[in-house]
Amino acid sequence: MNRHDRYVVLTGGIGGAKLALGLSHVVPADHLTAIVNTGDDFEHFDLPISPDIDTLMYTLAGEVDEDTGWGRKQESWRFMDALESLGGETWFRLGDRDVATHVRRAELLRDGRRLTEATAELCRRFGVAQRILPMSDDPVPTRVVTDDGILDFQHYFVRDRAQPCVRHIEYHGADRARPSPEVLGALREPGLAGIVIAPSNPWLSIDPILAIPAMRAAIRDADVPVVAVSPIVGAAAIKGPTAKIMGELGLEVSARSVAAHYGDLLDGFIIDDTDRDVADGISTGDLAVATCQTVMQSLDDRIRLAESVLHFLNTVSSKSS
Amino acid sequence: MNRHDRYVVLTGGIGGAKLALGLSHVVPADHLTAIVNTGDDFEHFDLPISPDIDTLMYTLAGEVDEDTGWGRKQESWRFMDALESLGGETWFRLGDRDVATHVRRAELLRDGRRLTEATAELCRRFGVAQRILPMSDDPVPTRVVTDDGILDFQHYFVRDRAQPCVRHIEYHGADRARPSPEVLGALREPGLAGIVIAPSNPWLSIDPILAIPAMRAAIRDADVPVVAVSPIVGAAAIKGPTAKIMGELGLEVSARSVAAHYGDLLDGFIIDDTDRDVADGISTGDLAVATCQTVMQSLDDRIRLAESVLHFLNTVSSKSS
Repeated sequence: MNRHDRYVVLTGGIGGAKLALGLSHVVPADHLTAIVNTGDDFEHFDLPISPDIDTLMYTLAGEVDEDTGWGRKQESWRFMDALESLGGETWFRLGDRDVATHVRRAELLRDGRRLTEATAELCRRFGVAQRILPMSDDPVPTRVVTDDGILDFQHYFVRDRAQPCVRHIEYHGADRARPSPEVLGALREPGLAGIVIAPSNPWLSIDPILAIPAMRAAIRDADVPVVAVSPIVGAAAIKGPTAKIMGELGLEVSARSVAAHYGDLLDGFIIDDTDRDVADGISTGDLAVATCQTVMQSLDDRIRLAESVLHFLNTVSSKSS
Repeated sequence: MNRHDRYVVLTGGIGGAKLALGLSHVVPADHLTAIVNTGDDFEHFDLPISPDIDTLMYTLAGEVDEDTGWGRKQESWRFMDALESLGGETWFRLGDRDVATHVRRAELLRDGRRLTEATAELCRRFGVAQRILPMSDDPVPTRVVTDDGILDFQHYFVRDRAQPCVRHIEYHGADRARPSPEVLGALREPGLAGIVIAPSNPWLSIDPILAIPAMRAAIRDADVPVVAVSPIVGAAAIKGPTAKIMGELGLEVSARSVAAHYGDLLDGFIIDDTDRDVADGISTGDLAVATCQTVMQSLDDRIRLAESVLHFLNTVSSKSS
């Protein structure tokens, strides 16, 4: 790793934010850009909520609730408790301090800022020096086609706790969405040394990003190695419903399935040490595979995985180069 | 006072709510209706805020902050503090628990309820058995024409602390607004024994109600005595900018000015004991005047004034009868 090297990480919320935090400890702040899933974004109480952006922002600001991985630390729930006593909707929990983020975002958007600009202003206020970029300023709401019907993402994920059986996932409007100028700029920036796909849920968190045609093209055109970290260890997800969804979609629950899903977008793939014996079955002439400890419990785990990812990126060459 | 007698009080926020609370101690809950100014209503953070309705509701629920007279007791300000640190608008202070009221109201309105229905549901949740009726389900936003330009009410009143010099006050849309069926029902109800105009600001809190043509007609048609309590004691307002505004409008600051302002709508007028010497100058063949202690500091003061108002109502006959 050269001190001029720049990196982009594609990420969803909690799991991806852990790796982004690790990267923030080994890459200078102004050389690290996170392109974040906004397929989870929705309006609640007429407020524009961007769960993955906020998780990234709170995490990089040292402001995240470390017990849950989302929301603000030292949060209080007086608003939510009062709303419950009035018979209001409480399935999506908004802490008192967290509400301020959404209200401020609403003000900024109402003033005509793009989501990218509103995010930059919030990051500035939170003291986040890394760039956090929404994947697009165009809405691309994820819709989950389930046995219980077509569900808006947060209805599926939070309200229904990812219980309904998933048949198919739609990234609504992705074909018409454009990456923002800032996203395209980050992917074209001189000094870009690699693109990391965080160990987020490939179907719920990363695919919404990749579903934007110009995004995928820009990643290919970047002419730098693309490396993903498997969110699957053994036959289980590190966190969340990834394994359940893979089963429902008829896929083998394994790191190999994830690698196959990303296909020729990847130049390198990182699997957990405990999956060492399947590494040979995944690697091909076009796909290098590395193993390391991918489960991140402590801050040290996050930093070590970030170092491993950067080290691996330096050994992998881009297919397009 | 007969136990079947029903009463209607026209009221704004803090001052009027004190008298309404007093009345709630001497009139059975289902015999007391408050018709409340909604000229102060506005949208803030995209939330529908009805300051006077909320003050009435919180006061009658025993939920009001007794130090300020508005907002919820045992309130916390975590949302507001967080918003301030993000550079958001903080001139209108919303407590954490208070926000829930506005969010719930927004949900109810979005579900198609009228403001009157949303208010009834909130009152039910707060355990308020008296009827609190918005003066109209149609918006009638008060606009204050000042030397600094035309200001939305809350910009004038809260943001600019009622500092700009008032030239004129507009009740926008009042000519097209209709009293709700519930308001008309309350004013036509058998057993209605009197209408009380609370010692609220006549120009900012009561006139918006009276500016609705069908409201004024319904009050006249009710054929019961109408009695007002003066918000002016001596040459000063008990609270708020009433005296300042009267001066700016070129009016003498006195109870007599208030009586003259309400004109032939009134059958009776209550002034403070300390203004006893001007009573004769106010009373006419058409207007009876009573004196009592109108300044309400304790709960006992509120109840005593309510008793005096009801007693006076029974001695006054309606002009129209």
